[in-house]
Amino acid sequence: MKKILLTDRQLPTRWYNIIADMKTRPLPPLNPATRQPATPEELNTIFAEELVKQEISTERYIEIPEEVQDIYRIYRCTPLVRARALEKALDTPAKIYFKNESVSPAGSHKPNTAIPQAFYNARQGVKYLTTETGGGQWGTAIAFAAQHFQLDLKVFMVKVSYNQKPYRKLMMNTWGAEVIPSPSTLTQAGRHILAGDPDCPGSLGMAISEAIEMAVRHPESTKYCLGSVLNHTLLHQTIIGEEAVLQMEMAGEQPDVVIGCFGGGSNFAGIAFPFLRKNLTGGAHIRVVAVEPASCPKLTRGAFRYDFGDTAGLTPLLPMYTLGHDFIPANIHAGGLRYHGAGAIVSQLLKDGLMEAVALPQLETFTAGMLFARTEGIIPAPESMHAIAAAVREAKKAKEEGISRTILFNLSGHGMVDLYAYEQYLAGNLTDEEYMPENTIERG
Amino acid sequence: MKKILLTDRQLPTRWYNIIADMKTRPLPPLNPATRQPATPEELNTIFAEELVKQEISTERYIEIPEEVQDIYRIYRCTPLVRARALEKALDTPAKIYFKNESVSPAGSHKPNTAIPQAFYNARQGVKYLTTETGGGQWGTAIAFAAQHFQLDLKVFMVKVSYNQKPYRKLMMNTWGAEVIPSPSTLTQAGRHILAGDPDCPGSLGMAISEAIEMAVRHPESTKYCLGSVLNHTLLHQTIIGEEAVLQMEMAGEQPDVVIGCFGGGSNFAGIAFPFLRKNLTGGAHIRVVAVEPASCPKLTRGAFRYDFGDTAGLTPLLPMYTLGHDFIPANIHAGGLRYHGAGAIVSQLLKDGLMEAVALPQLETFTAGMLFARTEGIIPAPESMHAIAAAVREAKKAKEEGISRTILFNLSGHGMVDLYAYEQYLAGNLTDEEYMPENTIERG
Repeated sequence: MKKILLTDRQLPTRWYNIIADMKTRPLPPLNPATRQPATPEELNTIFAEELVKQEISTERYIEIPEEVQDIYRIYRCTPLVRARALEKALDTPAKIYFKNESVSPAGSHKPNTAIPQAFYNARQGVKYLTTETGGGQWGTAIAFAAQHFQLDLKVFMVKVSYNQKPYRKLMMNTWGAEVIPSPSTLTQAGRHILAGDPDCPGSLGMAISEAIEMAVRHPESTKYCLGSVLNHTLLHQTIIGEEAVLQMEMAGEQPDVVIGCFGGGSNFAGIAFPFLRKNLTGGAHIRVVAVEPASCPKLTRGAFRYDFGDTAGLTPLLPMYTLGHDFIPANIHAGGLRYHGAGAIVSQLLKDGLMEAVALPQLETFTAGMLFARTEGIIPAPESMHAIAAAVREAKKAKEEGISRTILFNLSGHGMVDLYAYEQYLAGNLTDEEYMPENTIERG
Repeated sequence: MKKILLTDRQLPTRWYNIIADMKTRPLPPLNPATRQPATPEELNTIFAEELVKQEISTERYIEIPEEVQDIYRIYRCTPLVRARALEKALDTPAKIYFKNESVSPAGSHKPNTAIPQAFYNARQGVKYLTTETGGGQWGTAIAFAAQHFQLDLKVFMVKVSYNQKPYRKLMMNTWGAEVIPSPSTLTQAGRHILAGDPDCPGSLGMAISEAIEMAVRHPESTKYCLGSVLNHTLLHQTIIGEEAVLQMEMAGEQPDVVIGCFGGGSNFAGIAFPFLRKNLTGGAHIRVVAVEPASCPKLTRGAFRYDFGDTAGLTPLLPMYTLGHDFIPANIHAGGLRYHGAGAIVSQLLKDGLMEAVALPQLETFTAGMLFARTEGIIPAPESMHAIAAAVREAKKAKEEGISRTILFNLSGHGMVDLYAYEQYLAGNLTDEEYMPENTIERG
């Protein structure tokens, strides 16, 4: 069999909360003013209450509401695919499987958390959502989800992306969202920035500031939402791994290694945590590998400490591997991986030696991504190419060692709306980008 | 159940040749010089021999080679989906199902015939393929297929599309094809046109002329291929309907009406013919409806006669409903439906009253397509919107009549690489386009 499919009836009905199985639990977020743990009440001003409950929950499993399952079924369960054509091209004894999250409406795994976030907000009576988006994967996903629950959505999109990625903006418009190039004149933060620099190209940090400011201004009717990093976004993504565990069992396989690309942690956690459960509670020894870009190596070269989640310093302090919240990553095409820190759970797992991390250079990821497109027929997102490239490394190692090995990676998204990156690669204009620790807001 | 899935093992292994069941078989193609039926030898100079055999075959079923099945399994079987969210939005008693062909590598049904065409050419020892593409759906599909069989592919892409649709060109490049804006200096035909008009924007007819000329020049090593209209392309597409017949049975349903959009006939035939078989041989009474744009109404307002398949008059004469091979359709966004004629089989079926045709205005199709995107989460191609709009009409009629009805339509492709059309619609710039019979090469 090439594809292992699950029927609608086999959709998992619970998310997996790995915190329940961690011997050392992640440290709490801190209120930056008091340095005391942030209270649920403080978090409730920004996020829906149910999401805050999930953020701090220690329950092992959390039920997926029927209404969320219904919308999941628009694209879930997603296929598990044996990459036979890729294996053949690599002439490897390894078996390579991938979980295909690119089949969702937004073309990535992001709707897995966008749908429950929109649902819980709507159920609480929230009318308006605000968020930010860089490359646009998260913005399209939450636009899709918000219109399903009749929520009015404003997306602050980093201005340089807004101009470079018109198709992403159009997808959001198609799903009824308002997309605002950031910095904008809608917020105090935006006006302040524009007063200093009318041509400012924007940044993710600035867009977060604008989105949070707009939510805080009307806390009863308006909430903010975030597509990665936080515990509840990782929780929702475990639907990926829960399906994959079932599908690997149907294929009669146990993976030796599970791989996901790493930005804020959501797609990696999604595929990896349900397999990590086998290690934490079942005595299995599955290697779990997060793949980050060499130019933004928080997991392999960052420090473990409290830091802000955003550039401007508006969020609570989070315990994380970080390059510093003022670090500006090189302008690689994998925009979704250009984030300075890792979420609290993943940082703790890495610190405790329960997972691995590897940093890959851009050109290697594109070479692997192109091979994947030509063999398996799916044009991968530049982010997902990192997982592919790590899988290719494992497959080549298996060949060198003459050992079979079962590799599973998460294809987090397709690259059809981001083909400009391919043009650069095919024209030979793409380069590897270095990690430049001195490149920060202050000094950069 | 929302989705009816088939496993890899359930992939149909035969294509259905409807000619075997037609009381009145389609008339043969004619050599324009002699007005005698074109011989297989004449057709072999342009097309692979096995494809010519299939073009004139009267066998009911033709086996799908194992090598083709293997590549089909990259994306097939495709899901059959119950459009519950769309039904709810329409508040209709009708049940609406769609076959989701948008999940293929190229984002449409086109690989269904691209893969066998590339396979048969490669098996015959052909090294080079030439083809043309307008909007780019066919070009991307044959690029994907050609690189799987190590065929060198040149795609002549209508110059105005080449400039307007860079993402389509990049997809073809990613799959290793050379894309040439047409008219080009590579052919005598192209040079002749450019000598008269250096800024000529090109047309599908000109691109066909260039592709055929390049193939005829080296008939041993090089063949031409076409993505629609011909009998063998329709044959290959019946994999869609063969799967859908199985899936509707699994759902416990028999469709009352089966709908496909109509350009040259390939996706329509693909979904419809296996259901028409039930009418022709099993006494069923399933309505089968082809949907064309109001501005290019060959099925509803064309004449049934012999005409050329291309603008320049290089192909054999084909028996078809046609608006005249020199007719220039209005510049609607559904580029794949801007074709002057219908294939020989469909024309005969329509003439014999065995199917229906309807012509829909552009704005109605976009309104329906937008509703579909917002409910079912898939952004449809402008071509596929025609099938959606016809399904919506049927669902509304069912509501008016207070009768349940089972509707099945083919979602031939997604529109993610063609979002410019959505921008025009959302900005209120889209208009209905009239049928202008006087708009021809000579008089237009």
